[in-house]
Amino acid sequence: MGLITLTTDFGYEDNFVGLMKGVILGIAPQVRIVDLTHGIRAQDVDQAAFSIFNAYPYFPSGTVHLAVVDPGVGSERAILAARAHDQFFIGPDNGLLSYVLAEAEDLEVRRVENRSLFSPSISRTFHGRDIMAPAAAHLSGQGNFSKLGPPIGQYVCLPPLAAETRPDRARGRVVDVDRFGNLVTNIGNDFFDSKNESYIIEAGPLIIKGLSESYADRPVGAHLAVLGSFGFLEIARNRDRAEKKPKLTLGTEVVATIHERK
Amino acid sequence: MGLITLTTDFGYEDNFVGLMKGVILGIAPQVRIVDLTHGIRAQDVDQAAFSIFNAYPYFPSGTVHLAVVDPGVGSERAILAARAHDQFFIGPDNGLLSYVLAEAEDLEVRRVENRSLFSPSISRTFHGRDIMAPAAAHLSGQGNFSKLGPPIGQYVCLPPLAAETRPDRARGRVVDVDRFGNLVTNIGNDFFDSKNESYIIEAGPLIIKGLSESYADRPVGAHLAVLGSFGFLEIARNRDRAEKKPKLTLGTEVVATIHERK
Amino acid sequence: MGLITLTTDFGYEDNFVGLMKGVILGIAPQVRIVDLTHGIRAQDVDQAAFSIFNAYPYFPSGTVHLAVVDPGVGSERAILAARAHDQFFIGPDNGLLSYVLAEAEDLEVRRVENRSLFSPSISRTFHGRDIMAPAAAHLSGQGNFSKLGPPIGQYVCLPPLAAETRPDRARGRVVDVDRFGNLVTNIGNDFFDSKNESYIIEAGPLIIKGLSESYADRPVGAHLAVLGSFGFLEIARNRDRAEKKPKLTLGTEVVATIHERK
Repeated sequence: MGLITLTTDFGYEDNFVGLMKGVILGIAPQVRIVDLTHGIRAQDVDQAAFSIFNAYPYFPSGTVHLAVVDPGVGSERAILAARAHDQFFIGPDNGLLSYVLAEAEDLEVRRVENRSLFSPSISRTFHGRDIMAPAAAHLSGQGNFSKLGPPIGQYVCLPPLAAETRPDRARGRVVDVDRFGNLVTNIGNDFFDSKNESYIIEAGPLIIKGLSESYADRPVGAHLAVLGSFGFLEIARNRDRAEKKPKLTLGTEVVATIHERK
Repeated sequence: MGLITLTTDFGYEDNFVGLMKGVILGIAPQVRIVDLTHGIRAQDVDQAAFSIFNAYPYFPSGTVHLAVVDPGVGSERAILAARAHDQFFIGPDNGLLSYVLAEAEDLEVRRVENRSLFSPSISRTFHGRDIMAPAAAHLSGQGNFSKLGPPIGQYVCLPPLAAETRPDRARGRVVDVDRFGNLVTNIGNDFFDSKNESYIIEAGPLIIKGLSESYADRPVGAHLAVLGSFGFLEIARNRDRAEKKPKLTLGTEVVATIHERK
Repeated sequence: MGLITLTTDFGYEDNFVGLMKGVILGIAPQVRIVDLTHGIRAQDVDQAAFSIFNAYPYFPSGTVHLAVVDPGVGSERAILAARAHDQFFIGPDNGLLSYVLAEAEDLEVRRVENRSLFSPSISRTFHGRDIMAPAAAHLSGQGNFSKLGPPIGQYVCLPPLAAETRPDRARGRVVDVDRFGNLVTNIGNDFFDSKNESYIIEAGPLIIKGLSESYADRPVGAHLAVLGSFGFLEIARNRDRAEKKPKLTLGTEVVATIHERK
């Protein structure tokens, strides 16, 4: 019994996700399907790449992660299948999988092109349903990875995710704003030595001194910085959204500096 | 192990859908449940009818499709169960199932009224939970279709979906706007002969010449017409929403004409 | 094969819920997971408490209900696990479970603190994923309730839900507004004797005479009062939202009085 996750920018108003599940269950009736999110901003490959990168470590080996954010659907872009981190990943070749693949030690990437595994009729605008969902279903549980298509050596990579880091200074940016208005940065938690409280975090015009242990650590409404649950520094506010007053948003520069304690 | 799909206008803020699943799994613990969408506009029977009509072909035979958009709940409207296309459909008798039933070659429709299958306590305002979910659960996997209630000969039908079509001209309208701002029409893809590029598509004040192979076929921001993934012509824009400038919306007239190539 | 439900304020844009499912399925691959809702308003413990209170009666015995609305995450607040109503409940000790527990006849509450059941690495801000999801997975199906932690005698309780009731008068308030704009009150349906039509319902400046059998019972656009599907009186409008003109909202006072028929 396999496990397939879905990450898309399809939203929740249409039946697109449901159709992909119908196709998958028609091929692999026993497979378990988990929605990671379908709320990726429309056509935002960067957000999807960050989301799937943060998600895969929480799934068992053998899981098939299917990610469809595909503005180039119907053009000549390839569809990739990858074996990495003892799991599988399927998605368009537009950088969506590149954060995941960049960190893999043992890695095999193939171009999905075995038409005998696809739906009999392939639309021009919905390869998630007609190509990628069937490919994921065939892969799940059986691991027929090499059947999907030939190995591919080159694929599209997004610029590296990591912040620019020196021993006493990390210069990064806000890479995600979550449902609660917490700002996720690309500065890794490992930059910080939790014994040392002399940090200064600058996010746009905002200056935060020190790290907090929890949201409730500061007064209601106060900004704070916290080691986030995905391994990256987050800027938050206790019981409020962090991106208002001053306005902080995707791309806002964030600089963390270490000051020696005296 | 059966498969039940759910299509509702219940949205995602309340627990209504979850309760229906609880009722279903209490009766049929092994059944698989797939959400098609719960984002149908509140009480929009037409949209739900179009959604379920586009969805069922992607599901295996024996699937039970439960659709609840039910502004007349608690009034005297019947609840229908239908066997069609080797699948089953349950929903209120308000036209919701009529597109699906209009196309069925082999068809059996019953009025759901066997109270022994319903929940012991039936509310006045949530028959999806108290009547239709239990009926779907009993039907799933076992196919006890005739137990649900007696055959019914007449049921509510929406006006036909199809555009008005002549050999060289189809006059239809926008029947759906998807999450990406693509406009789905009721002009069937089969109106178009893909070898012939001399089509003119008029959508409100907009004039589009020729069909595109994919969204990326035209410059970023340009409108285009494409044979859609549900079998109907769609009006789209490359990397943008199609309904802005000019404003196109549900009901906007769309006319496609074939011009002989010279 | 166990059943776990999820109720959170995580919304649908992020992958938070998906990660909890990954953790659960990594521990208990056979468990069934049902989303009750992830659309609880951010950090609204009252709304979540009302939602889970209305939901549990529709689930089979042995179900594990996991509810995460947790503004105090990372502070010293406890995490509770409760056995009540032949089902199980896990959530932060902030009142979220208190409506459920207040009605239980046979009740056992424990403090979740057996770290050997948690994820190896526990973040400061996402105990839903790192503590509560693993606890629910371990509990599901096996019923290892006592392993979770020691019994706890005191926990946070919200003010009682029920309206203030005399034989001829109930004074309550709007406690929920659903997706359709129906206003759910805390006046129980059992206050009303369905044989007697001489009720007056006052909601803010609005006066409604008598109860309706269904939404369609009154003209389109008219306000009405109906015995709701969760056991509480609801204020609604036929084919419209009830909270506009006059503006009625969460907290609006609702008074129901019984007038003897003459």
